[in-house]
Amino acid sequence: MPKNKSTQTLKELGKDVAAQAEKSQNPKIEVPIRALSNINFDQKSRTLVLGDKKAERYFFNVAHAKKFLQTIEIASVSKNLLEEEKHASLRDVFYMAKRTIPGTNINLVDEQSESDSVIEDLELVTGMSREQLNISANKLGSVAGKVVIKDKGDTIDWSKMGSGGWSIPSAVEEIEFKKVDADYVLYMEKAAVWERLNEDKFWNKHNCIIISSQGQTTRGIRRLLQRLYEEKKIPIYVLCDFDPWGAYIYSVIKYGSISLAHASERLTIPSVKYLGITAQDIEKYDLKKHLIKLKDTDVARIKQVSEYEWFKDNKAWQIQFKKMKEMNAKAEIQALSARGISFISEKYLPEKIKNKDLLD
Amino acid sequence: MPKNKSTQTLKELGKDVAAQAEKSQNPKIEVPIRALSNINFDQKSRTLVLGDKKAERYFFNVAHAKKFLQTIEIASVSKNLLEEEKHASLRDVFYMAKRTIPGTNINLVDEQSESDSVIEDLELVTGMSREQLNISANKLGSVAGKVVIKDKGDTIDWSKMGSGGWSIPSAVEEIEFKKVDADYVLYMEKAAVWERLNEDKFWNKHNCIIISSQGQTTRGIRRLLQRLYEEKKIPIYVLCDFDPWGAYIYSVIKYGSISLAHASERLTIPSVKYLGITAQDIEKYDLKKHLIKLKDTDVARIKQVSEYEWFKDNKAWQIQFKKMKEMNAKAEIQALSARGISFISEKYLPEKIKNKDLLD
Repeated sequence: MPKNKSTQTLKELGKDVAAQAEKSQNPKIEVPIRALSNINFDQKSRTLVLGDKKAERYFFNVAHAKKFLQTIEIASVSKNLLEEEKHASLRDVFYMAKRTIPGTNINLVDEQSESDSVIEDLELVTGMSREQLNISANKLGSVAGKVVIKDKGDTIDWSKMGSGGWSIPSAVEEIEFKKVDADYVLYMEKAAVWERLNEDKFWNKHNCIIISSQGQTTRGIRRLLQRLYEEKKIPIYVLCDFDPWGAYIYSVIKYGSISLAHASERLTIPSVKYLGITAQDIEKYDLKKHLIKLKDTDVARIKQVSEYEWFKDNKAWQIQFKKMKEMNAKAEIQALSARGISFISEKYLPEKIKNKDLLD
Repeated sequence: MPKNKSTQTLKELGKDVAAQAEKSQNPKIEVPIRALSNINFDQKSRTLVLGDKKAERYFFNVAHAKKFLQTIEIASVSKNLLEEEKHASLRDVFYMAKRTIPGTNINLVDEQSESDSVIEDLELVTGMSREQLNISANKLGSVAGKVVIKDKGDTIDWSKMGSGGWSIPSAVEEIEFKKVDADYVLYMEKAAVWERLNEDKFWNKHNCIIISSQGQTTRGIRRLLQRLYEEKKIPIYVLCDFDPWGAYIYSVIKYGSISLAHASERLTIPSVKYLGITAQDIEKYDLKKHLIKLKDTDVARIKQVSEYEWFKDNKAWQIQFKKMKEMNAKAEIQALSARGISFISEKYLPEKIKNKDLLD
């Protein structure tokens, strides 16, 4: 995505508002509505998408004026970032926008939630992602594999990163893939599991790429997974715990999330498969002694997740949720360590992948 | 640290217990006490250290038997890891130790807190760190700078890591520093600030190493900082928010922490200096408009932190705590972004470092 296009789009937004003012019209910006009422699960693309409903935000309207100003201000902050070729975090942008409106004692923004919300609006108004506006999210996660990339002038070989791996940046738009040799990508929610697989050089023995976060899958990681799939046609497998939280982590990568439905196109990967612990694995790999009893919050979350539109017609997943309730238990990936420290890399994963023992 | 020595120490522990049993004695292990009553702030080394009090743990004692068995079991898990040259996380070790004691229906460990606590005991009994026992902690953080290391057979150049940096592993004992060109190390608590400095190639312009975590300073990061200081004599500066949480993060690196007092020797760096936001900076860099009002939890934490032994006689820090209360406010590093996105890298940090405007 050329930077120029982002800058151009923001300039046009400004010119449009200025033109309305010059014609003595009440300046307005059209913003698609981001409420649940305007979010649909698209059966064809199998992703959460935003509907067509739009709201009009007017300058001369007591209820709109502040939000209108905030939108223009954040657009201006982003335009400056693009022109200076710098990236800012959400927190930075909050501080850059936080100032007193001249002639008043009112702050343009008081809480980061206000600027965050306007940034999401701006993504919709401009059709560009936050990353394309040079506003970055959290940085988290590591990667290793037989891949060479070019980034900021450096040539980086993911197969020569020792015990640490390459640290994934918050924005991966500008990475160039120079050489990619992998049959699949294994994404896991736990850094400790990544360290195990990296120590066993799993990515080398099994010709794959291993990627981890720690809990949350950041936008940087989701976009990296998506780019590897779309540009290099490499299948993505997700390795999670057998619990409703693991199922949700998987579903966010596959279908998108409610809060980022407007960014589905740039973040979701409908073809992704689940390779984590299943009810069948608990039998097959004798993990019964290593289960953890469900807490009330787990039970409530199972109910919630199993009723999501993207899970409710999925028979394989409904069986998983039913088994969790019947066993009244969950199982962590690390329970496999009870079978031996390298059981996961020497037996469990190779066997599951060979047998295509995956959930959709 | 040669692996052999770790294995040897564990073998001796086992032989000692076996010898006691053969002589028909009640087998015992001596474990230094890790309670606050046995933790002192050593004025000379300026670190938190463990006192001399020891407890004896007997096999034939209803109150001791389980803990005794746990200690032996974890020692055995660690010995196997060392012999197989593999690392396990705390969670892995929990699963490896969690099994039913033969002839009973009692589990050797039921909760991870039990195995974690025994691992800390084992560090004390053997005089080796968790990392030396091949048991790793969390993995977190990134690094960039003009440094070349060797790790697991790979040569890794921290100056050629693009926008991501090298991802810091949970254990850094085996890293070899091949070339280190830096006047100081800048450690910051926020990954977003690290990304800003990395984008500005701050480490290149100012000949330093930049390291970040996200919130917590992991043992891996603390040990990396310590090794850079002790082996390469590079001063360490810590960049934190102006609040009691930032002050505490700094103090843990400098003096150690209560829960890891037994590991002070391998983790603390008494010479470290604080380069974060100060009350004086708020005046000097005109940050008054960008302060955040203290919450009740902040006020309570200021009282607590300011009364810690290592802070209570420190005049410069007592002034900081007093000013926080007077202003009833805290300030984040990112407040500097209000002055411009690269204000931190172009003005604030270079000026503070040039003027040696540091707190001890």
